[in-house]
Amino acid sequence: MATIRDVAKLAGVSVATVSRVLNQNGYVNEDTEKRVKKAIEQLNYKPNEVARTLFKKTSKTIGLIVPDISNPFFPELVRAVEDVMNIYDYTVILCNSDEKSEKEKQYIGILKQKYVDGIILTTNQLESDEVLELGVPVVVLDRPSMHSFPSVIADNYGGARLATRHLYDIGCRKIAHIQGPTHVVNAMERFRGYRDEMQELGLWNEQLIIQGNYQLKQAKEATLRALQEHKMDGIFAGNDAMAVGALKAVQQLGLRVPEDVAIIGYDGIPLTEMTTPELSTISQPIYEMGAIAARILVKKIEAKPLEQLHYVLPVKLVERQSTQRRGTR
Amino acid sequence: MATIRDVAKLAGVSVATVSRVLNQNGYVNEDTEKRVKKAIEQLNYKPNEVARTLFKKTSKTIGLIVPDISNPFFPELVRAVEDVMNIYDYTVILCNSDEKSEKEKQYIGILKQKYVDGIILTTNQLESDEVLELGVPVVVLDRPSMHSFPSVIADNYGGARLATRHLYDIGCRKIAHIQGPTHVVNAMERFRGYRDEMQELGLWNEQLIIQGNYQLKQAKEATLRALQEHKMDGIFAGNDAMAVGALKAVQQLGLRVPEDVAIIGYDGIPLTEMTTPELSTISQPIYEMGAIAARILVKKIEAKPLEQLHYVLPVKLVERQSTQRRGTR
Repeated sequence: MATIRDVAKLAGVSVATVSRVLNQNGYVNEDTEKRVKKAIEQLNYKPNEVARTLFKKTSKTIGLIVPDISNPFFPELVRAVEDVMNIYDYTVILCNSDEKSEKEKQYIGILKQKYVDGIILTTNQLESDEVLELGVPVVVLDRPSMHSFPSVIADNYGGARLATRHLYDIGCRKIAHIQGPTHVVNAMERFRGYRDEMQELGLWNEQLIIQGNYQLKQAKEATLRALQEHKMDGIFAGNDAMAVGALKAVQQLGLRVPEDVAIIGYDGIPLTEMTTPELSTISQPIYEMGAIAARILVKKIEAKPLEQLHYVLPVKLVERQSTQRRGTR
Repeated sequence: MATIRDVAKLAGVSVATVSRVLNQNGYVNEDTEKRVKKAIEQLNYKPNEVARTLFKKTSKTIGLIVPDISNPFFPELVRAVEDVMNIYDYTVILCNSDEKSEKEKQYIGILKQKYVDGIILTTNQLESDEVLELGVPVVVLDRPSMHSFPSVIADNYGGARLATRHLYDIGCRKIAHIQGPTHVVNAMERFRGYRDEMQELGLWNEQLIIQGNYQLKQAKEATLRALQEHKMDGIFAGNDAMAVGALKAVQQLGLRVPEDVAIIGYDGIPLTEMTTPELSTISQPIYEMGAIAARILVKKIEAKPLEQLHYVLPVKLVERQSTQRRGTR
């Protein structure tokens, strides 16, 4: 296969000149251009992506850093990013950071070396300074916006108020909240929504916080303990996995869902339809979040104007069996 | 930042010569090498990944083509591949093919252009000729081996026999099988395991096939219809999603699991622990499959000998509530 150097040799010009012709930048005189084009034809030279990357410092590749693809929230998000990037002819390098800042920094170093054209970050770890230094377009996804980076997030605070209000509306008065990890901003926003809604409902003194870490098993254990010590007739879990944990705890103690304790989760991942009873949840537009982040990143890469810098997407209440209205209250 | 061309200019040599020095291949006389090294030092030139890719035709990147990352079987597989590749300093470009051969071919074209060092394929679509033409190391994962490509798969046939036998052992005699898509080889292997085990158990005439497509909803509908027309006391579903569908169908008709109908799934994805009752399943070593495929690919890329070409990993029976032994039979 012919290389760019073969073309340069045959045309009697430098590699840089061939590159200028290929990328149509910089001055090349007409005669030289003709010779280069003829050499390209004669040698059936096909400029490859990698060569283009080297000369243009653009790779038609982006980096996508997620905490952990095997957390059920992320596959749909990743799928959406990849779908949109595919339309625009970009490929996606997937990185799992486990929310460790060291791993994130390592990946970012690698991605820079590969001249990725942009990065989509879902992280709590990096400082905005470190991200600024990247020198490539960055979009922050599912995490609070840092600095002036475009961001896409769903309305965590509003969704939590919606969930709490829904439990109230179906008759619950002792509403507990299983809180996510305190270092995760989304989790704190949901906690804030619960707290404010409880206050507005006049249930300030009825607040009950169960400390969770977004994991099913830990939430189950914590809920078991809480149920033995406290009265509650409703549980708003900070994510769906913890809602499943709560469901298991309630059922293990021989209580009925929703008759004795109603449960609502958060996220809207597919597993909420797989439990018995099926779980009510606050559904985030996960696919849309990924797709919008990808479209913003393409615009940033192509230096096109953004219509909007920070997207806060609406969430919606999905009512299922676990919060079915109780007739007698 | 200095480029390879700056180095060449300062040293008074060609770009190709600088590349030979950097990559330590090809003949360069001692004096030239010294000049190049001095120029590199003076300019503080750092050869970048992309330049190395161009000259070495290796990118420290691999392609991973999966049908759909949002299918719950794949996140753990993808995670394992990425984890292992990260250890060996490779990044992973993720591609979702939706099992469409056109999309697979498109991705393969792109991956070749980016000089990926290898590809891990989970596909039924591509012909082995097309894969052979790739000219890069390929490992086939979770799909039957093609040609002489290394492959990693779990024991689908044996697992299906295990599942069927387990239902028999707990007292089931009318054992139905929800079959996966007929164009998916894994699904057909599981069907074959069911059929052979039923024959060995002397239940040849009791076989009942429910046609599924690996999706929860379709399996639920199909199971509802089957339950209305046929007697059955056990269901072996070709994957876990279909087992959840069957569970929902059985419960919707007011029947008890496992008392009236026992159910076992296949794959061992996390959601089997989230249902009520929890689902028995045949657990595939999903993470290990991905990790082995990745390690084989690294060996192939580095032209090291393989200990084994085709891996068929053992599966194991995970007994949970949905097949709890019935005392009275």
